[in-house]
Amino acid sequence: MSLPTLSHGEFELVYNMLSLAIAAMFGSFVFFVIARNQLTHKYRPALIMSSLVVGIAGYHYWRIFNSWEAAFTLTEGVYKPSGTPFNDAYRYVDWLLTVPLLVAELIAVLALTRAVRGPMMAKLTVAAVIMIATGYPGEISSDNTTRGIWGFVSTIPFAYILYVLWVQLGKATADAAPRVQKLLGDTKLLLLATWGFYPIAYLMPQLGVEAGSATVALQVGYSIADILAKCGYGFMIYAIAQAKMEAEGASVSNDVAAEATA
Amino acid sequence: MSLPTLSHGEFELVYNMLSLAIAAMFGSFVFFVIARNQLTHKYRPALIMSSLVVGIAGYHYWRIFNSWEAAFTLTEGVYKPSGTPFNDAYRYVDWLLTVPLLVAELIAVLALTRAVRGPMMAKLTVAAVIMIATGYPGEISSDNTTRGIWGFVSTIPFAYILYVLWVQLGKATADAAPRVQKLLGDTKLLLLATWGFYPIAYLMPQLGVEAGSATVALQVGYSIADILAKCGYGFMIYAIAQAKMEAEGASVSNDVAAEATA
Repeated sequence: MSLPTLSHGEFELVYNMLSLAIAAMFGSFVFFVIARNQLTHKYRPALIMSSLVVGIAGYHYWRIFNSWEAAFTLTEGVYKPSGTPFNDAYRYVDWLLTVPLLVAELIAVLALTRAVRGPMMAKLTVAAVIMIATGYPGEISSDNTTRGIWGFVSTIPFAYILYVLWVQLGKATADAAPRVQKLLGDTKLLLLATWGFYPIAYLMPQLGVEAGSATVALQVGYSIADILAKCGYGFMIYAIAQAKMEAEGASVSNDVAAEATA
Repeated sequence: MSLPTLSHGEFELVYNMLSLAIAAMFGSFVFFVIARNQLTHKYRPALIMSSLVVGIAGYHYWRIFNSWEAAFTLTEGVYKPSGTPFNDAYRYVDWLLTVPLLVAELIAVLALTRAVRGPMMAKLTVAAVIMIATGYPGEISSDNTTRGIWGFVSTIPFAYILYVLWVQLGKATADAAPRVQKLLGDTKLLLLATWGFYPIAYLMPQLGVEAGSATVALQVGYSIADILAKCGYGFMIYAIAQAKMEAEGASVSNDVAAEATA
């Protein structure tokens, strides 16, 4: 992708948004690492996964930030491409690692039996990897037909993930407490809303948006979507775990006693 | 090893693969450090070793990434050698430290008696060090005969490691629970498949692969093999520990009580 010339404001908007993402990711990382001890043992794997997601994303935003800074030079009041390529692949590498973890943490927090959990995690992980891997050839292509074909292929596993989460997971959690049901519904809507942004961003070049605005909109949009889909989603997972503990009358303090007599 | 000129895509593929390895290693590091508390005390040493392996590897991938970036300059759309040498020795230094730990973590997770465990760890560690140390003189040689001789010498301790793990370890774990046996078998297969890649990569120059493609294939192949052999293998070790805990009816919460009465 050849970079456009950006105004001072355009360059800075992306620059500051990337820095906001770094702060949000590492801030959430610290929260998830520490806050897992507020939960009983069976809910901690979900928080561990949340912390991996935002830790890995924080690393990638650090790289994207540095790459963005190196890709432009301030010349006569505008930011011109410096010749150093801007490496957008960091996002795809990040998603390849974090998207399977995001679906896994939703399964993990439900603490289903191994027989239900195992196959569901396997299906979702494979679908997530296929979704990301088939999206990338389209993303790096400047040909709209190629973009369209890979975009379509990538939508199939996406639809499958939604089906598993809504239909199959719905059945497996039908007897959960009302508050848990409510939070679970909200979390799935958050996932749908944030993940739904990525295909829109992906389609932007097809929609004929002007190069400078498109680049800025894409970077800002991806950053906001990532913060909501990773940090926000992780906080929802934490809330679900707490609601489930409450419904069970469990507490960290009596975790020892409860499990010992189980 | 003199470096070839690489296309934009070739350079970036290695670049992104090295960054993926950094993210995978440090992500796994966080996981192993935190997740050891999900296990009873006797399985934690295995997770501690896993975290050392990926922590050390993450450091080395960071160095390799920087070395790769410094070794090339973007000139007229292609990546030409910059004159700064690419330091491949990082990989061997890494293996010298991590390979003995990898075999040790498999022994550690089995929680064998000290009488069985001690000599087995000693034999495997010595064999692993000899394997790496004798591979290196071949790796840095551009003479195919020298490569062949050192490659052969290095294969002897490799074969010995496989013998100890398959035959001797098989006897020591014959009475484990079926799920543990299954996971243990899978882990040994993962080890064989990933470790088996290194000699193939090593032989690539002998096979007369074109310089640019060989360099890219080698770096990408080593990175994938390392991610599977370190992170993936570590996750298998974690799964074995959990399966063993389940077979024993043990939980973290009653670990204290159980150990106190033991």
